[in-house]
Amino acid sequence: MDAKEYLMKTSKEVDGPIKSYIPDEEPMRLIEASRRYPYAGGKRMRPAMVLAACGAVGGDRKKAMPLAVAIEYIHNFTLIHDDYMDGDSKRRGMTTIHVDYGMPTAILAGDALFAKAFQIIAELDVDGEKLREVLRYVTKAVWDLARGQEMDTANEGQLVSEEVYIETIRLKTSVLFAAAAAGGAIVGGADKKTVEAINEYAMALGLGFQIFDDYLGICGDSSKTGKSVGNDIRKGKCTILITHAMSHIKDPKIMAEFKGILGNMDATEEQIARAREILTESGSIEYARKTAQKKVDEAISKIKFLKPSEEKEFMIALAQYAINRDV
Amino acid sequence: MDAKEYLMKTSKEVDGPIKSYIPDEEPMRLIEASRRYPYAGGKRMRPAMVLAACGAVGGDRKKAMPLAVAIEYIHNFTLIHDDYMDGDSKRRGMTTIHVDYGMPTAILAGDALFAKAFQIIAELDVDGEKLREVLRYVTKAVWDLARGQEMDTANEGQLVSEEVYIETIRLKTSVLFAAAAAGGAIVGGADKKTVEAINEYAMALGLGFQIFDDYLGICGDSSKTGKSVGNDIRKGKCTILITHAMSHIKDPKIMAEFKGILGNMDATEEQIARAREILTESGSIEYARKTAQKKVDEAISKIKFLKPSEEKEFMIALAQYAINRDV
Repeated sequence: MDAKEYLMKTSKEVDGPIKSYIPDEEPMRLIEASRRYPYAGGKRMRPAMVLAACGAVGGDRKKAMPLAVAIEYIHNFTLIHDDYMDGDSKRRGMTTIHVDYGMPTAILAGDALFAKAFQIIAELDVDGEKLREVLRYVTKAVWDLARGQEMDTANEGQLVSEEVYIETIRLKTSVLFAAAAAGGAIVGGADKKTVEAINEYAMALGLGFQIFDDYLGICGDSSKTGKSVGNDIRKGKCTILITHAMSHIKDPKIMAEFKGILGNMDATEEQIARAREILTESGSIEYARKTAQKKVDEAISKIKFLKPSEEKEFMIALAQYAINRDV
Repeated sequence: MDAKEYLMKTSKEVDGPIKSYIPDEEPMRLIEASRRYPYAGGKRMRPAMVLAACGAVGGDRKKAMPLAVAIEYIHNFTLIHDDYMDGDSKRRGMTTIHVDYGMPTAILAGDALFAKAFQIIAELDVDGEKLREVLRYVTKAVWDLARGQEMDTANEGQLVSEEVYIETIRLKTSVLFAAAAAGGAIVGGADKKTVEAINEYAMALGLGFQIFDDYLGICGDSSKTGKSVGNDIRKGKCTILITHAMSHIKDPKIMAEFKGILGNMDATEEQIARAREILTESGSIEYARKTAQKKVDEAISKIKFLKPSEEKEFMIALAQYAINRDV
């Protein structure tokens, strides 16, 4: 099973439905603004997770399609608000909403997508008690997303503990992913224990993904990742490599040297190479890779008990892909 | 039945519960920001509407309390975002959230309250299908609120038609009020026809309230309303008085004179008095008052069929109060 192939397949399946839930309506300016991100394509990781979890528990994937759309809308709502908060003018080649439509419409387009997502969830083709279960996971995830984003803002330029770092990425990236998986399993008719296991799978996977991203940020091939490899260091971004390094660089002179490079926007390529050398010697790079591996192993162990299916295969393949990629 | 007394009574009932749904949690900065508006008191019109509608259909008001809180949180979420969009630094004597906590936290506090509201709704003590019904009304209302706010922004400084004006205030102020009433009735166990009637009652009442506000903006006693009476005219605010005047001032000279005053921030007290004279002659003031009266009559007629109860009395009294107040 090739995870990327499955993603491409589901991305195509999702494209039509994702464009069918925001009809023309006044004021069209708001409608257009709220459509831009969801209509633009992308990896559709969260919708794929909804559909796969539904299929993996023996459910009818089609029944989970509206939830897949709703989760993607929620993801897009957070992107619109985040882009404005961060002052970003570009996202995947598109101009961001606040740049083209102005601040008020950007905030409202986010709010509107959020509302639309729950309008869609209200119509899910499941009984009311299952609807309540889905609602619990998804609303909790959005609450946590706001907390994670606030933490991320507060952490900026700070050296935080590994505990705080992990909690921040859990809230910022894993919870919605996990809610997508749990929601898909509920719609698929899974019992509570199965739903919880699938939720834990996706939570661990989300962490593994993010931690491996941090690893790639230092050790990746910039011609493939498209990101300047020294960037995380120049920005002083507090990743798991940095939280590890802070307690594992024993020589005060080396620590001083490292801190002189970290967060220095003018650091030269030689300095970046030296920082990477220090991170290698402190074991921080290896630690990040191993921690990502551990999370992925944990994720896979959670769903071992599921009956064999194409969807289960995808879920395992996706976990393996999370730490075996160069982009 | 004194509507204000009932409001004060329910406001006290709601105060405790409203402070019980946002526990201490990290990051506390976000928690504090999201608590400020809901904890600050106020008229609690929407919670009162939830509780009254529940009681009016013979339901147990206590069962509707969580929904009352959720609706108030949604109202507060929109206030936080609106205050930021409008650049307002004060609300009812409080400093606004974005002023004290900065823009990102203000946007996130709004998002968080929105999420919390739906977390509360997910736990409503009703069966799953009733939960679905509540969810339909409330999610539609939030979608409409975003549309209304966008329209309001677009209308600024424009002379729009009465139709556009009514649609804007319906979306901006009536829909959440109407969802509160419908939701309360659903929790109270009402059948669909009753729910719909109560929804229509609150929608018409919301319009009557807003239109009478516009009337007060021109004819009110500023020592009571606390608003400068010429303000709406100086700002060129497009109220129903203005949409009416635009098609009922027949003399082009008077129209030119009126337009010279409308939207003129430096208009003198004499000019404001003259504008009011013109609005009286064109029948626009009387038209606003009568339209508000018509909406209130319509509202009351919708709930005539309900069995007598204290709550029904309040709902009627509130409608009458909407157009018999000086503040």
